Amino acid sequence: MARIVMKFGGTSVGDIDRIKNVARRVQREVAAGNEVAVVLSAMSGVTNQLVEWCKQMAPLHDQKEYDTVVATGEQVTVGLLAIGLQEMGIKARSWCGWQVPIRTDATHGKARIDSIDTTEMLADMAAGSVAVVAGFQGIAPGNRIATLGRGGSDTSAVALAAALKADRCDIYTDVDGVYTTDPRIVAKARKLDKITYEEMLELASVGAKVLQTRSVEMAMKHHVRVQVLSSFVDAPGTLVCDEDEIVEKELVSGIAYSRDEAKITLVRVADRPGVAAAIFGPLAEAAVNVDMIVQNVSEDGKSTDLTFTVGRADLDRARKVIEDNKSSLGFEGLVADANVVKVSVVGVGMRSHAGIAQKMFQTLAAEGINIQVISTSEIKISVLIEEKYTELALRALHTAYGLDAA
Amino acid sequence: MARIVMKFGGTSVGDIDRIKNVARRVQREVAAGNEVAVVLSAMSGVTNQLVEWCKQMAPLHDQKEYDTVVATGEQVTVGLLAIGLQEMGIKARSWCGWQVPIRTDATHGKARIDSIDTTEMLADMAAGSVAVVAGFQGIAPGNRIATLGRGGSDTSAVALAAALKADRCDIYTDVDGVYTTDPRIVAKARKLDKITYEEMLELASVGAKVLQTRSVEMAMKHHVRVQVLSSFVDAPGTLVCDEDEIVEKELVSGIAYSRDEAKITLVRVADRPGVAAAIFGPLAEAAVNVDMIVQNVSEDGKSTDLTFTVGRADLDRARKVIEDNKSSLGFEGLVADANVVKVSVVGVGMRSHAGIAQKMFQTLAAEGINIQVISTSEIKISVLIEEKYTELALRALHTAYGLDAA
Repeated sequence: MARIVMKFGGTSVGDIDRIKNVARRVQREVAAGNEVAVVLSAMSGVTNQLVEWCKQMAPLHDQKEYDTVVATGEQVTVGLLAIGLQEMGIKARSWCGWQVPIRTDATHGKARIDSIDTTEMLADMAAGSVAVVAGFQGIAPGNRIATLGRGGSDTSAVALAAALKADRCDIYTDVDGVYTTDPRIVAKARKLDKITYEEMLELASVGAKVLQTRSVEMAMKHHVRVQVLSSFVDAPGTLVCDEDEIVEKELVSGIAYSRDEAKITLVRVADRPGVAAAIFGPLAEAAVNVDMIVQNVSEDGKSTDLTFTVGRADLDRARKVIEDNKSSLGFEGLVADANVVKVSVVGVGMRSHAGIAQKMFQTLAAEGINIQVISTSEIKISVLIEEKYTELALRALHTAYGLDAA
Repeated sequence: MARIVMKFGGTSVGDIDRIKNVARRVQREVAAGNEVAVVLSAMSGVTNQLVEWCKQMAPLHDQKEYDTVVATGEQVTVGLLAIGLQEMGIKARSWCGWQVPIRTDATHGKARIDSIDTTEMLADMAAGSVAVVAGFQGIAPGNRIATLGRGGSDTSAVALAAALKADRCDIYTDVDGVYTTDPRIVAKARKLDKITYEEMLELASVGAKVLQTRSVEMAMKHHVRVQVLSSFVDAPGTLVCDEDEIVEKELVSGIAYSRDEAKITLVRVADRPGVAAAIFGPLAEAAVNVDMIVQNVSEDGKSTDLTFTVGRADLDRARKVIEDNKSSLGFEGLVADANVVKVSVVGVGMRSHAGIAQKMFQTLAAEGINIQVISTSEIKISVLIEEKYTELALRALHTAYGLDAA
């Protein structure tokens, strides 16, 4: 007997028929003799409607009341699934965040889970009942409902799996696993059987939107084995786990890309201490996230060019902040370019194997693709290239690293 | 300074604009220096949708899970109104049933309120905050959400007014008060300034659907002054209060009618002890409510005719129950008639004034309307007549009792 947490997202519980489909999935795990807790999102579209109503009442609104309103979406789906399970003869009960309780901090609207008291739930599960738990919500100090921020149900599921010491946390979604790259672009992309937390984190942060980053961090911290699989297709998915669980490690696990990039180059910035702080301080204050940064070596000892990237939606704001500070920064010109894409090669094998970056540069060069910016982490190499080369770059790299499906 | 409970029904909070309209109503009471608690229903239509989903999951479903699902409608409106009030610069916070807490018994789906702990809410109100309370819901033993049954928000409001020792409980609805009779039928119907609890109860039970019966009973028990008034029209409504608050009592306060009636006559029933029990026992078991009952004097000492009324929707079921028991009951024939209406004259003045019934009979006779069944209570006389005479009877009686507007 295993203890399993199953999590289903908004499209998986999008209408009554789909909730009945979820009930059948749960039934199978129960029939296999497993102890099951299910974490649900709201029906797809419902949370957006509730958020919209809050905005219509007041553009800036109390996050405590916002949480009270938007948390109702999950309360509906857990009640409905409990009814569906009971109809199949399976003991089940629903749990709102405050009933468990899932305690959070007071950061309403994007709260963090402090602790989960599973005493009552475990007693109920030991008595043969499926626990159907509202994702995305908890209870904050002062007995008020708190929500975890968009996509928070993944985090609820992983946190619950950690608290329940579950053998596995299955995240059911509308894709059937984690791929070596985007299968819509590279036909030969392969589904991975296993991937490490670290790789998953790097892939998530560069645009593979399978799991919420926070949930992967939490899984890594608590060693929760997370499986990503499809609600609609009946096949094993991808297991996200510790590195030592993966016997045959690939040098490179995946190639990700992000079109949500824009590049800003400041021409002939003064080359003296404090300049970087003077530039990135105002951007941080304006809540503009800066990603890649490259500063060229100064040719004349007095000035240099500085290039960095921001999210595409932040480009206009970033440009305005820089230009408002032009006199104090003292650069000659600003060149902005939203016509770029970031391509990243990710793999834990990089730690021990040289030549992986070199292969990336050679492959792109062979295709005539110019690299504009490079940044690296321990298990990732990212390059910024012209957007029109996205597909070409992904396919060439996928083949070069031996990832193509047979 | 007064302490007021304001209650708004589903049509009054039916969309964002209407919730903003409610916020303005609340603002006026706050501006007048009053301490205010607001009780809300769900947006009109929402509860029906939630109930429908539960039925689609399983025709017969766990009432605890049903309650979890349907209680969300009120949670949405209280959060939105709190946001709307804050946007106007008014301190406000929402309260779900479990947050107050409003404790109920374990009869999920139609729970009764056991107690309301107002300690925290009163402290909040004393600090200048409007309490925005979800109607229709409370918390049952075992920490589960319970709902009070359809229309339960009126009961929530009155119970909260009693617990808060409020000076008044204002029930905002889509009519502007209680009328002497149905103004759609009798153009000269007048809005009453005041009416006693007893009269309101009799009117409610005979078809004037302004207030839920349970809420009036509760108001009477706790001496809560209830005002019925319109959300949309700006005018005083009707105060439901103790008899001694009404200086100029009318002999007759109102004339109500109910088309939801059907008549069954059993011909030549044996006239012996135990026959009534033999007939009405099986009906009660089949959950058929019997209203008026008339048994004629036996002519031959052996058999008699028995006439009674049931709800129109129950007629077929009642007929089947009786016919299934025909052999043991031993009657000769059954005559059913759904073509009837019950007209009732209500007034506390009847207690001390003779001749009120006589005036009813004379008035109907003068119009050539035959009375089929008569029943009376301390402050009400009801007659069953042919349905086609409904309008004629109402107008004639309204004039006869001097109720016509000038």
